[in-house]
Amino acid sequence: MQTAVLTDSLEFEFEERERPDPGPEEVLVAIESVGICGSDVHYYRHGRIGEYVVEAPLVLGHESAGEVIAVGEHVTEHDPGDCVTLEPGVPCRRCKYCKRGEYNLCPEVTFMATPPDDGAFAEYLAWPADFAYTLPETVSTRAGALCEPLSVGIQACRRGSVGVGDSVLVSGGGPIGLLAMAAARAAGTSEILLSDVVDRKLEFAAERGADRVVDAREEDLAETVATATDGHGVDTVIEASGAPSAIRSSVEVVRRGGDVVLIGLPGDGEIPIDVLDIIDNELDIHGSFRYANTYPAAIALLESGAIDVEGVIDFEAGLSEVEDAFGRAMDEETVKGMIAIGD
Amino acid sequence: MQTAVLTDSLEFEFEERERPDPGPEEVLVAIESVGICGSDVHYYRHGRIGEYVVEAPLVLGHESAGEVIAVGEHVTEHDPGDCVTLEPGVPCRRCKYCKRGEYNLCPEVTFMATPPDDGAFAEYLAWPADFAYTLPETVSTRAGALCEPLSVGIQACRRGSVGVGDSVLVSGGGPIGLLAMAAARAAGTSEILLSDVVDRKLEFAAERGADRVVDAREEDLAETVATATDGHGVDTVIEASGAPSAIRSSVEVVRRGGDVVLIGLPGDGEIPIDVLDIIDNELDIHGSFRYANTYPAAIALLESGAIDVEGVIDFEAGLSEVEDAFGRAMDEETVKGMIAIGD
Amino acid sequence: MQTAVLTDSLEFEFEERERPDPGPEEVLVAIESVGICGSDVHYYRHGRIGEYVVEAPLVLGHESAGEVIAVGEHVTEHDPGDCVTLEPGVPCRRCKYCKRGEYNLCPEVTFMATPPDDGAFAEYLAWPADFAYTLPETVSTRAGALCEPLSVGIQACRRGSVGVGDSVLVSGGGPIGLLAMAAARAAGTSEILLSDVVDRKLEFAAERGADRVVDAREEDLAETVATATDGHGVDTVIEASGAPSAIRSSVEVVRRGGDVVLIGLPGDGEIPIDVLDIIDNELDIHGSFRYANTYPAAIALLESGAIDVEGVIDFEAGLSEVEDAFGRAMDEETVKGMIAIGD
Amino acid sequence: MQTAVLTDSLEFEFEERERPDPGPEEVLVAIESVGICGSDVHYYRHGRIGEYVVEAPLVLGHESAGEVIAVGEHVTEHDPGDCVTLEPGVPCRRCKYCKRGEYNLCPEVTFMATPPDDGAFAEYLAWPADFAYTLPETVSTRAGALCEPLSVGIQACRRGSVGVGDSVLVSGGGPIGLLAMAAARAAGTSEILLSDVVDRKLEFAAERGADRVVDAREEDLAETVATATDGHGVDTVIEASGAPSAIRSSVEVVRRGGDVVLIGLPGDGEIPIDVLDIIDNELDIHGSFRYANTYPAAIALLESGAIDVEGVIDFEAGLSEVEDAFGRAMDEETVKGMIAIGD
Repeated sequence: MQTAVLTDSLEFEFEERERPDPGPEEVLVAIESVGICGSDVHYYRHGRIGEYVVEAPLVLGHESAGEVIAVGEHVTEHDPGDCVTLEPGVPCRRCKYCKRGEYNLCPEVTFMATPPDDGAFAEYLAWPADFAYTLPETVSTRAGALCEPLSVGIQACRRGSVGVGDSVLVSGGGPIGLLAMAAARAAGTSEILLSDVVDRKLEFAAERGADRVVDAREEDLAETVATATDGHGVDTVIEASGAPSAIRSSVEVVRRGGDVVLIGLPGDGEIPIDVLDIIDNELDIHGSFRYANTYPAAIALLESGAIDVEGVIDFEAGLSEVEDAFGRAMDEETVKGMIAIGD
Repeated sequence: MQTAVLTDSLEFEFEERERPDPGPEEVLVAIESVGICGSDVHYYRHGRIGEYVVEAPLVLGHESAGEVIAVGEHVTEHDPGDCVTLEPGVPCRRCKYCKRGEYNLCPEVTFMATPPDDGAFAEYLAWPADFAYTLPETVSTRAGALCEPLSVGIQACRRGSVGVGDSVLVSGGGPIGLLAMAAARAAGTSEILLSDVVDRKLEFAAERGADRVVDAREEDLAETVATATDGHGVDTVIEASGAPSAIRSSVEVVRRGGDVVLIGLPGDGEIPIDVLDIIDNELDIHGSFRYANTYPAAIALLESGAIDVEGVIDFEAGLSEVEDAFGRAMDEETVKGMIAIGD
Repeated sequence: MQTAVLTDSLEFEFEERERPDPGPEEVLVAIESVGICGSDVHYYRHGRIGEYVVEAPLVLGHESAGEVIAVGEHVTEHDPGDCVTLEPGVPCRRCKYCKRGEYNLCPEVTFMATPPDDGAFAEYLAWPADFAYTLPETVSTRAGALCEPLSVGIQACRRGSVGVGDSVLVSGGGPIGLLAMAAARAAGTSEILLSDVVDRKLEFAAERGADRVVDAREEDLAETVATATDGHGVDTVIEASGAPSAIRSSVEVVRRGGDVVLIGLPGDGEIPIDVLDIIDNELDIHGSFRYANTYPAAIALLESGAIDVEGVIDFEAGLSEVEDAFGRAMDEETVKGMIAIGD
Repeated sequence: MQTAVLTDSLEFEFEERERPDPGPEEVLVAIESVGICGSDVHYYRHGRIGEYVVEAPLVLGHESAGEVIAVGEHVTEHDPGDCVTLEPGVPCRRCKYCKRGEYNLCPEVTFMATPPDDGAFAEYLAWPADFAYTLPETVSTRAGALCEPLSVGIQACRRGSVGVGDSVLVSGGGPIGLLAMAAARAAGTSEILLSDVVDRKLEFAAERGADRVVDAREEDLAETVATATDGHGVDTVIEASGAPSAIRSSVEVVRRGGDVVLIGLPGDGEIPIDVLDIIDNELDIHGSFRYANTYPAAIALLESGAIDVEGVIDFEAGLSEVEDAFGRAMDEETVKGMIAIGD
């Protein structure tokens, strides 16, 4: 089978590999659709993300969906012909985090496209049946693949206790910010502000339903939020940009007793944060790392039509055009590119 | 000012009373719209609800909204001309329940139209300013009055931890059931079943967005739910009918680890419930009593358009037609009647 | 190896079986101490518990601890010589309950001494390494075996949100009630009432630290609780007796907004419960089924000395005396009997 | 009546003031015991804390208890002769924070000894009856006064979800750290580490039950915590020192998915914090500000004997010796000084 392999920074090669056989509790999936994530682009550009270094050729891609073409002998929940989306992180199922249901924190997790584990830019993938989720007929594999970034948004909303009638500021209008916004809306948020520094992203966020967009280059975020919330601040900030200034502002623009959810990774970890704001206003600051137990909800939201996830896609390219696609994905105006595999 | 007073079962009189003056922390409100609640009808029919007995002439009505026409000297949050909805229960603000934010459980609460406290079928009402909530311009006082039953629905959803991607069965298609359904949808529920035994209510529920309606006279509820949920049961049951059979079924149709919220009052309190179901499936059964801290969320949902609350109204009548209106409200096909006051 | 096998009601046989080999992720444990649980006694007396019927010879016993004597090839967390307690329910690790951390609700769980799965009245047991928990040197295997009923108590306290400064009524002074009491005390409860109908259990509960014991044959429980709580009711009721009258009383003796946790299984499931109490007082009724993620906390409480679990043991007998031991365990005055295995 | 008034930095004067009359919902309390808090000392030294500036003569002291000598006409919960502890912050009872039960966040709160509101270094104080809590006979007013700092500890434990079997690091061995440690122990924590940089405080913490004390001048905190927790980190850090280095370390020494509670105020608000640690380990960082709904629990813990709060007292002095007492309180080895008032 065909795979696109990252061999070095900025260099993909196509490699013919043997089609895997599904293990007894696995399904074999013909991959149809894979999203290009910012982390894929980061590996492509820099050959590493923090301590994760691409040392051997690596198959990128972890936002994937396709069709089941064979099932292992113990698999009962899927049949050939099912369309499924694949949750890319498979935990050990045995450690205390797994037992508690916080399997996103499992230290032994296998995660697609994170060295040394290969990802989904390949024609076939064998994957544990219980981390493959059946897509209803009305949900395409293009949409199904995007259950992954949507899951990041759902996890962020859960971490920040986003609920009915709340006001939320999402900082950062990339795919994670936009899908966190969609998840917040689905959870009953009645007012959403979204800030960014790129015109197209602001326009796009407005089109996709932000009640107000804030151009952080020109507007004073704290002032805009204060105006929009009668001086109280928003109930929850979802920080999806990783920009140090946005992280610092988070604790200022949230209301007393409010929640700040951090998802965006800053280039350098140490950011000066006003601890007096945190204490005097009794804030809750939550890191949000990947997700756990979000796929069923993500699929339900797509099926019910509550979220139009395909609307964030800018372009789609074939597997043979992967290098070109990554070039386009590096453009700061791109929100989401997809790779289509198979015919 | 004019008031409609219940003097005896099935008998209203119109009584001219003195217009109240607002206390220093009160607003004086010219009432414009008041919903007729099932409890109003119950007092009208029977002169009592359980231990609450109508001994002196009683002004009914506790779902109300109107216009502020004067404010007490310490009031800063409202001005004459504001349209407001009135939260009908004002707690003592001093007991342990009030301090904890569970003010719906305050034993010293004053609640409109609950003997001996008068309600809102009157031209004017003086009310604590902080239990009067400003309505945005886009929300009518007709809609504003219905923040009260909507609050009952929001409270039920909170009690049952209804959230994104959940499946919910609402039993009972009266105004509380319908507005609980609307609140559940706003909270991200992706599949809602509603059961009732009246054709018109089933039709109405289907029109208002139930994914499936269940005629409990003809269908086996447990079977229908099992089919709709792949045999798992729903995540949450909101029991709004008070029917003993529906209460008993609740613990059967909910999934393992699921939540049952009880709002509907049965005529006789003692209902045989299968305790083995509760234990073996580790269920949570939650009583839900009135509401606390729901009005801001209710108004936000009306303002954002997430909920069309006026859609549950069947008819509107003037204060002088109150007797006739109660007659219509007693029809089992009626969902919600409103009394309009003033011009 | 030697095993005690229940072949029919009231009949044990000793059976020589082959010593199991540990699988790659299992440990082989030389069992040293096994508690006799009420469910063991129930199988012994009646040959069944509800739908679970002893059809083939069954090894009873699920409260066990012993010494690791061999480990499978992939086991890293244990070494031969470790003393361990065995969590008796091993879930599928794959279903949605397992993924959420609610593995006690896994429908595919294998549970010791629940037909058709054998238990621990045997010299050796091979068990998944991650459901064997290392005991610190200061904790005996006698104590370690009782992590199982203590876990039931910890789960009940978690389900009922028992916390610092709370008042609790435990109904039922058997081992589950007593260990729920101990867990509630460890969680900061400041006032504990315990009710029972057996003199020795009441005395024992008083010795083990109940602030007040209630003889439900002679005292009016509701009155006693009211007196002890200034008329408010207790914050939480832990119902561990299964007596229908105690279950019915639970909703009366708990305060408004309080929690009732049901653990005790009534003989017949349907119990008439006052639903108006549940609704008007906005109660939470929680089933509590086995436990999940409690063993580490149970061991920590034994190690820190917060709980003296061995204090509930009435007698200890050898495996060869199992029939006699079950006879003594059937006495209503017995709290906990233990079987010692090996030398 | 006699009061000790701070007129300028480092200068107390004694001022004869008129004894207040209790309002209709107030009690008049003859103050008997007042703790000297770090914030009192800070006002004494610097004449201000951040934006709170002592502009007019100010009565310090907010950890107080005494005897009720008169009650207002509407007061039913107290009688003359009752010993009570006074919760020093009285909120507006009307804002959204008060309604939600988060009254510690009320922007209109009146707080003893916070300019411009006077505190408790006075012979008499009139105070809202519902913020005066009756002390049981077995609890002295010396102990009762310390319900205030104990409440800070209880709030911190609640904010950090400290529970049964948890491991906790308390950083800072002053009265807040020590009482947070006591509250954590009462909540079931099984392993507590406490770090400080003052010999006497470390010794004192060890005497009062810390399982391990860490001298942060000499030991590497991260290493010590790693050793004590098998490399996992503690479940919760309670940061009560305000030292920037301790705040920074908090996110390193807590386990994945763990909680950090910030109470100690740093001199300068902005502290560089490793945001990658927060995100990758999905931490929760909670500010903890004063307390709400803690006094009943604090009193219950004192009554049950779970916490020996008087054990933190170093010395007691009369009101006339206040200046000398503040001198002793400034010594870094002092944990808690008390002022006794009356005879």
